[in-house]
Amino acid sequence: MTTDTATDYARRIARVREVVAERDLDGLLILGPANRRYLSGYTAADGAIGESAGMVLVTRDRAALIVNPLYTDQANAEAAELEVVELRGRSKKLLPEKLKEWGVRRLGFERNYTLYGFYEDLHENIEDGGTLVPVKGIVEEMRIRKSDAELETMRRAGKIADDAYSRVTAALRPGMTERQVARALDEAMEELGAEGPSFPTIVAAGANAARPHHEPGDTPINAGDPVVIDMGARYEGYCSDMTRSFCLGSADERYQEIYDLVLRAHDAAKEFVRAGVSGKDADAVARDLLTGAGYEQEFSHSLGHGVGMDVHEQPSLHKESESTLDTGMVVSIEPGIYISGWGGVRIEDTVVVTAGGYESLNHAAKGPVL
Amino acid sequence: MTTDTATDYARRIARVREVVAERDLDGLLILGPANRRYLSGYTAADGAIGESAGMVLVTRDRAALIVNPLYTDQANAEAAELEVVELRGRSKKLLPEKLKEWGVRRLGFERNYTLYGFYEDLHENIEDGGTLVPVKGIVEEMRIRKSDAELETMRRAGKIADDAYSRVTAALRPGMTERQVARALDEAMEELGAEGPSFPTIVAAGANAARPHHEPGDTPINAGDPVVIDMGARYEGYCSDMTRSFCLGSADERYQEIYDLVLRAHDAAKEFVRAGVSGKDADAVARDLLTGAGYEQEFSHSLGHGVGMDVHEQPSLHKESESTLDTGMVVSIEPGIYISGWGGVRIEDTVVVTAGGYESLNHAAKGPVL
Repeated sequence: MTTDTATDYARRIARVREVVAERDLDGLLILGPANRRYLSGYTAADGAIGESAGMVLVTRDRAALIVNPLYTDQANAEAAELEVVELRGRSKKLLPEKLKEWGVRRLGFERNYTLYGFYEDLHENIEDGGTLVPVKGIVEEMRIRKSDAELETMRRAGKIADDAYSRVTAALRPGMTERQVARALDEAMEELGAEGPSFPTIVAAGANAARPHHEPGDTPINAGDPVVIDMGARYEGYCSDMTRSFCLGSADERYQEIYDLVLRAHDAAKEFVRAGVSGKDADAVARDLLTGAGYEQEFSHSLGHGVGMDVHEQPSLHKESESTLDTGMVVSIEPGIYISGWGGVRIEDTVVVTAGGYESLNHAAKGPVL
Repeated sequence: MTTDTATDYARRIARVREVVAERDLDGLLILGPANRRYLSGYTAADGAIGESAGMVLVTRDRAALIVNPLYTDQANAEAAELEVVELRGRSKKLLPEKLKEWGVRRLGFERNYTLYGFYEDLHENIEDGGTLVPVKGIVEEMRIRKSDAELETMRRAGKIADDAYSRVTAALRPGMTERQVARALDEAMEELGAEGPSFPTIVAAGANAARPHHEPGDTPINAGDPVVIDMGARYEGYCSDMTRSFCLGSADERYQEIYDLVLRAHDAAKEFVRAGVSGKDADAVARDLLTGAGYEQEFSHSLGHGVGMDVHEQPSLHKESESTLDTGMVVSIEPGIYISGWGGVRIEDTVVVTAGGYESLNHAAKGPVL
């Protein structure tokens, strides 16, 4: 981690502590993986659902990273600004004991990252007089505006995706499978310095391109097929997110028409973006254009989302969004059209919101033909 | 999916419906990804925390797969035995409407797969008179004993990991990095027919081997280094899980001694396994042996866990386990010793519990020297 310094972690923890005091809590328990890394520098990833790699507990006078013995060595090596606490045994018994020892009676917990079962276990085992308070967005709100150092890291994450895309698509030939292309993209991103992909790389060919979240399989990419590639790199904890669509070799008239329409919606929404506009209005710019052309149902997702340590974070850009864009926010702009049995087109750049507009973090060539 | 047939899904849903009736519920909402796939054949993976690829709702007279438009096409293609319901918009508003329409007043939800925030939103938006009932283990208990067809699939998942391990370690040379070896293992498993790894492949060299869940990085594997490789394949939805430990080229006396001890614990626990023994006693067989040799603290995790559609599932094999092993259960046996700054040794086979003992699903060569 070169992006975040000891000073950053200390400042962030101090800010959480202010919120803890403002909300009349004795502590806040942080289970969200990106929030945990943002506050500590600890990079371990959670396993499956319910298999947490650790939690950060910020109280009025302590900041601890609480882990089980699987993670103690890594926690000690990475989370230098926090006290590492190892719990050997069932955390539903041991965590309440620690809370009692530390005098934490009113404990905030992250509603959007805490399983109901974890809450219920803690609730049943906590000392009389202990209260659990669901909270949301405390650390996420701190992460929404990126510092100059964070933006510099995100530029590199964007460039890694750009360069990997250019390298792999230059070698793309008819007959290669979705999976082969996805694997080549992942390898190229790692060779270019990524920790890994920021989400499972999507390569969708032919009718599969109608599935926005298609998982690459053994479908070959044939000449003339619609193809959607959605990819991003994770670099020093920060994500990039970019989508390109094309036909291989040549595109027929229908593809060309749909592609041009999605590109117009993409460009129009991007040109609309600047500090002060709402996520709802940005969404409407693209949605009205696609709806006007008869594709209301086929644009079946949001215009975009914030990007940072999570590939999907605040602010939101959709029909019911309550976000207002501001300088230093980073958002994806990704209108799309999906037609079952035919395929789809999505075009996505991730951009930094500026006072007068935006700075794109993606520069890879666009279609409609590769 | 060749393992599970339409009849399997119908039978499983009928069983869930029995439990729904027994518990006086009107329906059960299933959010666990493996539970969802087990009941429907729908293979989509969830995104990050809170980004569900869908939920199964089983009521007294319906079985539905509820998805957002990102997944409708895939859901229709895969979940042939279920009614696919698409929710366009915020599920916290739309799901309560659907529950009302379907007459579901007492709704069970999976406490171990449902986020507190999801519960809270649903609770706030549900009709007066609607009740949410946290439940656990309903579908997991159905999955705990594997059918012959499931076991046959798991044998193949085990063999894919075995063969990939043999292929990649045959080509392992000093100076290759953890990451290169992990990537080679993932590629070999896919070439051998895996959907992908069943969890992020662990390759830990040198002092990194002291971290049971180490993520492979740029550390080179040097001659004489302790190395731990923990890997598994996902094949038709079922997981394998295997760990091997070795030194490259030659092992010093200390490594040899620790390796032999872990292998003895591994073998002793495996020989103890059969239908009727408890997970707690199986754990004790290995733990007592390592504790007796002075490594109580260094064996810092459970002896093992169930393996199936999840790589970690029921039954449990640890100090406080309440599981009793039975025929058709599949469990990992993985004692280990970890010493900060030095490295570690873990040896794991996954085995099927039989009436008189076990059948191992792993046959890859063991160390201590590669």
